[in-house]
Amino acid sequence: MNRQRIYLDYAATTPLCAEARDAMNACAETANANASGVYASARRARRLLEEARETTARLLDAAPDEIYFTSGGSESDNWALKGRAFRAGLGSRLLTTAIEHPAVLNTCRFLERCGHPVTLLTPDARGQISPEAVREALTPNTALVSVMWANNEIGTIQPVADIARVAREAGVPFHTDAVQAAGILPVRLHEAGVDLASMSAHKFYGPKGVGLLYLRRGVGLEPLIHGGEQERGLRASTENVIGAVGLAAALEAAGRLREQEAARLTSLRALLCGLLMDGVPGLQLTGDPEARLPGNAHLTLPDIESRALIPLLDLNGVEASAGSACTAGSPTESHVLKAIGLDTARVRGPLRLTLGRGTTEQDVRDAAQIIIQTVHAMRENRHV
Amino acid sequence: MNRQRIYLDYAATTPLCAEARDAMNACAETANANASGVYASARRARRLLEEARETTARLLDAAPDEIYFTSGGSESDNWALKGRAFRAGLGSRLLTTAIEHPAVLNTCRFLERCGHPVTLLTPDARGQISPEAVREALTPNTALVSVMWANNEIGTIQPVADIARVAREAGVPFHTDAVQAAGILPVRLHEAGVDLASMSAHKFYGPKGVGLLYLRRGVGLEPLIHGGEQERGLRASTENVIGAVGLAAALEAAGRLREQEAARLTSLRALLCGLLMDGVPGLQLTGDPEARLPGNAHLTLPDIESRALIPLLDLNGVEASAGSACTAGSPTESHVLKAIGLDTARVRGPLRLTLGRGTTEQDVRDAAQIIIQTVHAMRENRHV
Repeated sequence: MNRQRIYLDYAATTPLCAEARDAMNACAETANANASGVYASARRARRLLEEARETTARLLDAAPDEIYFTSGGSESDNWALKGRAFRAGLGSRLLTTAIEHPAVLNTCRFLERCGHPVTLLTPDARGQISPEAVREALTPNTALVSVMWANNEIGTIQPVADIARVAREAGVPFHTDAVQAAGILPVRLHEAGVDLASMSAHKFYGPKGVGLLYLRRGVGLEPLIHGGEQERGLRASTENVIGAVGLAAALEAAGRLREQEAARLTSLRALLCGLLMDGVPGLQLTGDPEARLPGNAHLTLPDIESRALIPLLDLNGVEASAGSACTAGSPTESHVLKAIGLDTARVRGPLRLTLGRGTTEQDVRDAAQIIIQTVHAMRENRHV
Repeated sequence: MNRQRIYLDYAATTPLCAEARDAMNACAETANANASGVYASARRARRLLEEARETTARLLDAAPDEIYFTSGGSESDNWALKGRAFRAGLGSRLLTTAIEHPAVLNTCRFLERCGHPVTLLTPDARGQISPEAVREALTPNTALVSVMWANNEIGTIQPVADIARVAREAGVPFHTDAVQAAGILPVRLHEAGVDLASMSAHKFYGPKGVGLLYLRRGVGLEPLIHGGEQERGLRASTENVIGAVGLAAALEAAGRLREQEAARLTSLRALLCGLLMDGVPGLQLTGDPEARLPGNAHLTLPDIESRALIPLLDLNGVEASAGSACTAGSPTESHVLKAIGLDTARVRGPLRLTLGRGTTEQDVRDAAQIIIQTVHAMRENRHV
């Protein structure tokens, strides 16, 4: 069979959009100068960088001097947590959740070893963190509250503005890992009352190797990368101007398409889930049926392990994953699925299908058919 | 006058070479998948990444599993120093030099505040650090010795292999900031006996936003960016495959051109220095006349301040700098020039002219003429 492959892992990464590619190509030579030089070509590169920063800030409801370009979401998460902990000093506490991305959780484990206690909040069965739970867990020595905007595995969206309000009332800075939300949901930082936010360009059809940390004016933060005076002295490294230009162009395109794509993907996801539920007995949707990322369908099977299913789907032309690509290489079970209290059997059988701009209705129908056939074949084999 | 501008700041950054650009364009789509996925498109991206790693390792006399791709030289420096200090524990010492790049020195200042004592070695008047001085300063609690391969301001090359031997004899890991050396000098890591080395692609005609840390097998290092399992669990972040491909292609091209370019630039630099010495009374060459980067001409004036000269050169079409672009925005005097004991007057008058692949003999003659005329005009004005 010569069928085209169906990519259903948009949460892992997205292809570079034409808008970002064209913007990067258009300025490739100008962007190539060192933006921190003190001569004409450097000033032109600097102007491109600052235009990218202004565009990005405008789209995110932030001020340009609150946008710090980084190498991606993981760096931004590390920076936010370590930067706050080191700034607040030994013994300062981090308050976060049990369902964060490894870039947050493994950073917390490191900080714990460095003498910073960490509190992990447990979500409810749909994966939501209640603002009340945050309020109750706050202590006077808390250096940072960090709650992701939307979960990368099960797609649950958190009540970010409500949690931000609780943190602000307590005078504690609030960070959100918005890597899965940016470009997909209406992320308005000032309006949401967020103090720090991490984003990654390649999750919204921008280039890899570039992301940002939003840092509200007045919030103190130790650098993660010390050195030169770039990024207002807070993030050393020769500026990746072309990356910033690509990020801004991708975010702009994502903003234009957002509402339309959200509606389209929500309906495609409903179609996909409907077809799969009908065709695969025992399949369950994980997470929140309403408060979830439009393109995220996270399903579990009680009797089939992902590590067997995913490779078979790949052989049959469907590219999917069991969870985060950041842990795809590791055989450990999902901390997210355990935290929401899923049965042990289902924890072994997650199937994350994430839809994006390239996904068509035909893709969804074809993928559903392939998944149904594959699961049936596996079940039959098992019963032989 | 419609003369073309002359770029003499190749130490700050280099233009992307055709080899890197073509390699990146050729694999742009394939490289775009998430290299940590578990399906066909991801495996193709992973293969590109590992090929880039193998090429890079081969060119640097290292093993592929000793190459960790990062976002650039500053991240690599931060990682090497913090990673060793945090791994060795509170109270462990860093032994480095007074002429390191800010990415090393400011990281040391941070680590000092965290409870890690730092020893700074002073170079001789030409900017060299003696292996004996390293040996004498080593203590039992030293977590890392860090001495740059070549200085970014004055171009002095250090006796890296000799210093590495001293560190190895003491059982202390040795890091070198090879950002200015890679692609320019023959950097052979196993042969030199280095344990960790930082490099940045955009200094050798590769893309910005990508670099590497070489970490010899068996040397323990705490991650700087915690999170996912990428880069063998030591550097979390979705892999910037296209950046790694560009780095490898640029390093390969640099290797092919190295000897020829080194000879050409050494002779162009001699021409430039000769013309300037003849035309500008009082001009002095800084650093080591022999052990220096081929394209580096660092000169000082006793009576003219760089902050006045550099903008005038820019107006007249010559793009130069006073020192590191990483501190170009800041008005502070160079720590390197102070460390080698330059007169206070000369510390205020540095002129760093760095030549590269695009520099022609005509550029050198034109630039020399412009610099001579500009300095004369400034001196005359001052005497009016």
